[in-house]
Amino acid sequence: MDYNFSDRVKSLKPSAIREILKNSSAPGLIPLSAGNPAPDAFPYEAIREVSQKLLEDTPIEALQYGVTEGYAPLREHLTAYMKKKHHVGGEGDDILITSGAQQVMDLLTKTLLNEGDTVLCEAPSFIGSLNTFRSYRAKLVGIPMEEDGIDLAKLEAALKTEKNIKYLYTIPNFQNPSGITMSLEKRKRVYELCRDHGVMVLEDNPYGDLRFAGEDLPSIKSFDTEGVVMYAGSFSKVVSPGMRVGYAIGPKEVIAKMVVCKQGEDVHSNMWAQIVCHRFMTGFDYEAHLQGLREIYRRKSSVLLKAMEEHFTPLITWSKFEGGLFAWCTLPEGVDMLEFVKRAMEKKACVVPGTAFLTDETQPCRAFRINFSTPTDGQLEEGIKILGETVKEFI
Amino acid sequence: MDYNFSDRVKSLKPSAIREILKNSSAPGLIPLSAGNPAPDAFPYEAIREVSQKLLEDTPIEALQYGVTEGYAPLREHLTAYMKKKHHVGGEGDDILITSGAQQVMDLLTKTLLNEGDTVLCEAPSFIGSLNTFRSYRAKLVGIPMEEDGIDLAKLEAALKTEKNIKYLYTIPNFQNPSGITMSLEKRKRVYELCRDHGVMVLEDNPYGDLRFAGEDLPSIKSFDTEGVVMYAGSFSKVVSPGMRVGYAIGPKEVIAKMVVCKQGEDVHSNMWAQIVCHRFMTGFDYEAHLQGLREIYRRKSSVLLKAMEEHFTPLITWSKFEGGLFAWCTLPEGVDMLEFVKRAMEKKACVVPGTAFLTDETQPCRAFRINFSTPTDGQLEEGIKILGETVKEFI
Repeated sequence: MDYNFSDRVKSLKPSAIREILKNSSAPGLIPLSAGNPAPDAFPYEAIREVSQKLLEDTPIEALQYGVTEGYAPLREHLTAYMKKKHHVGGEGDDILITSGAQQVMDLLTKTLLNEGDTVLCEAPSFIGSLNTFRSYRAKLVGIPMEEDGIDLAKLEAALKTEKNIKYLYTIPNFQNPSGITMSLEKRKRVYELCRDHGVMVLEDNPYGDLRFAGEDLPSIKSFDTEGVVMYAGSFSKVVSPGMRVGYAIGPKEVIAKMVVCKQGEDVHSNMWAQIVCHRFMTGFDYEAHLQGLREIYRRKSSVLLKAMEEHFTPLITWSKFEGGLFAWCTLPEGVDMLEFVKRAMEKKACVVPGTAFLTDETQPCRAFRINFSTPTDGQLEEGIKILGETVKEFI
Repeated sequence: MDYNFSDRVKSLKPSAIREILKNSSAPGLIPLSAGNPAPDAFPYEAIREVSQKLLEDTPIEALQYGVTEGYAPLREHLTAYMKKKHHVGGEGDDILITSGAQQVMDLLTKTLLNEGDTVLCEAPSFIGSLNTFRSYRAKLVGIPMEEDGIDLAKLEAALKTEKNIKYLYTIPNFQNPSGITMSLEKRKRVYELCRDHGVMVLEDNPYGDLRFAGEDLPSIKSFDTEGVVMYAGSFSKVVSPGMRVGYAIGPKEVIAKMVVCKQGEDVHSNMWAQIVCHRFMTGFDYEAHLQGLREIYRRKSSVLLKAMEEHFTPLITWSKFEGGLFAWCTLPEGVDMLEFVKRAMEKKACVVPGTAFLTDETQPCRAFRINFSTPTDGQLEEGIKILGETVKEFI
């Protein structure tokens, strides 16, 4: 039979990068290209305890249908917690539990976007979200990143000239892939600019709790008094990504539409995972757990930094990062980045070419992304050494 | 701030039925309107045992990211099981694990449908799926049901006259809401007709394992040698709906596109639930479990039938049902169905008005749906008595 696919599916082009990365999970490769939390970051003993207890106490609650909005005790706890700790969420806001934060990107796009409408995003930005926006046939407009976050002048110019902008997508903390953190001043200004142009902000904050240097900054959502910001939170990097539990905190009116869209996609999110997250947050010392994670990633990042200083300097440079899971590295002028990535891969060190994170992957780019949470310390040291040796072959 | 919602969201109209059912979960109401599995149908002791063991053996596997296609051992086991037991899935097919079967409806629609394209469906049909199709702005064309399934003459006429038909949506076993099972002859003919018109069949089979009378019939997918049928299976009615685990078995080419769409929606389905389903299917006597479920529903349906014979005959009639969770009842001519449902609700018996399941809920309809899995035996007897008394007030 011949299949007549939808235009949105027909327009999804096969990626050149996917070809390069196709074999990146082959055995023997050093996985600097992934984005998985470190295996020792999972609180699996606590989860086992919580899970056993809830399947003894309230098995039917964990196994029966739930409501689309999410498990009520988790919604209530998160609402109070995010308000108290991060000033996220106010009177005009509501909360929706999602099947991972990726579903927040999907549902907001479904709720706001017609084909051809514009999404502003940081350039570079997280490929998973960009692909979600593309699946709704968004026009993606990338705004360049500076050392302290998005380029405000270019953002303002885009807000003035682009048509039918529905939202700005930003990851203010330890951005994926650049590792960059947006300054406080820029956060305030991004809020004002978007508000003044009637454009929503989709603030994605999966890594905010993983700061291992510098000081916490307020989220953009914390300035929101006018229903401008949809905040996407996630348990993937702080409890478990396999559970697929995320959440959206944003204007009631928008959340209500997202609930209807979610009902048509998966009815509700896995109940066991929602209850485990609730009981883990409330029955254990959650702040101590987060502190433990920061120690794990501080240590791993210092292994990376030491190796980069030894093997990269002065040829390969990297952006400053104070948290998260990624380092963004730039090759010297004249080095063909895609050739470098291929050559490194032949030597078993696998990184992601920077073009993967652009709205147009045919644009020139000398950067690549390193993940330091997945590899072991030994793999990290070995991988950086290989990359350092590889770049010398291009000079 | 003013929100400019997408056309697809703007076109979702508030339902008159939702207003009627708004208070259906109020305490004291008899829940004949739900669709939950019976609480004693959950194998929660086995799930507790499996869950504890997997969080001891392989906690990281359960908590780490997985692949979009689904947990490989579950995919392999289901592929072999469905092929051997139900002749579902052949050389040209692949399997995708989804976040409940609802996601199969969503992903196939996303993969095939442009706005305004046509979906043929049974009339009446499952409201959840109809709403998913509506969220993609499908043109829904309802084909009337007969005692042995869809009206073939009307199906053929629609296949000939409607434009841009992407698929026929059907629930051949114990259909929701009508309880009707499609005859073997009609199954074969539906396959041939759709194939000959180049239209896919979306075969939704959530209740197939819950037959408590008559003989099992082959699925439409079992005839498929040409990549015509996408089969949607689910663990919701046989293990647990709260886990949100379903699956699609269909043409490789279509599944591949659905995988890309799923990646953008929720990356992958909850890992714990996928592993629990796999270990439950392989480590326990799954066939004995299914037999136990059939006994539970056979007993509950006999409570319902006895009560209906006592309180409904001769005024309210019902369609024959040999499995599933629902009975479809028809009021005498001249009775206003919506008024009847409202009046019954005032007396604490809550059923779903039949119009909820139509492609156009303003069409005339004298039917309502009863669920017999959620209420206790006592609630079932009391509810039917109230409905029987209520109808007399209209005569």
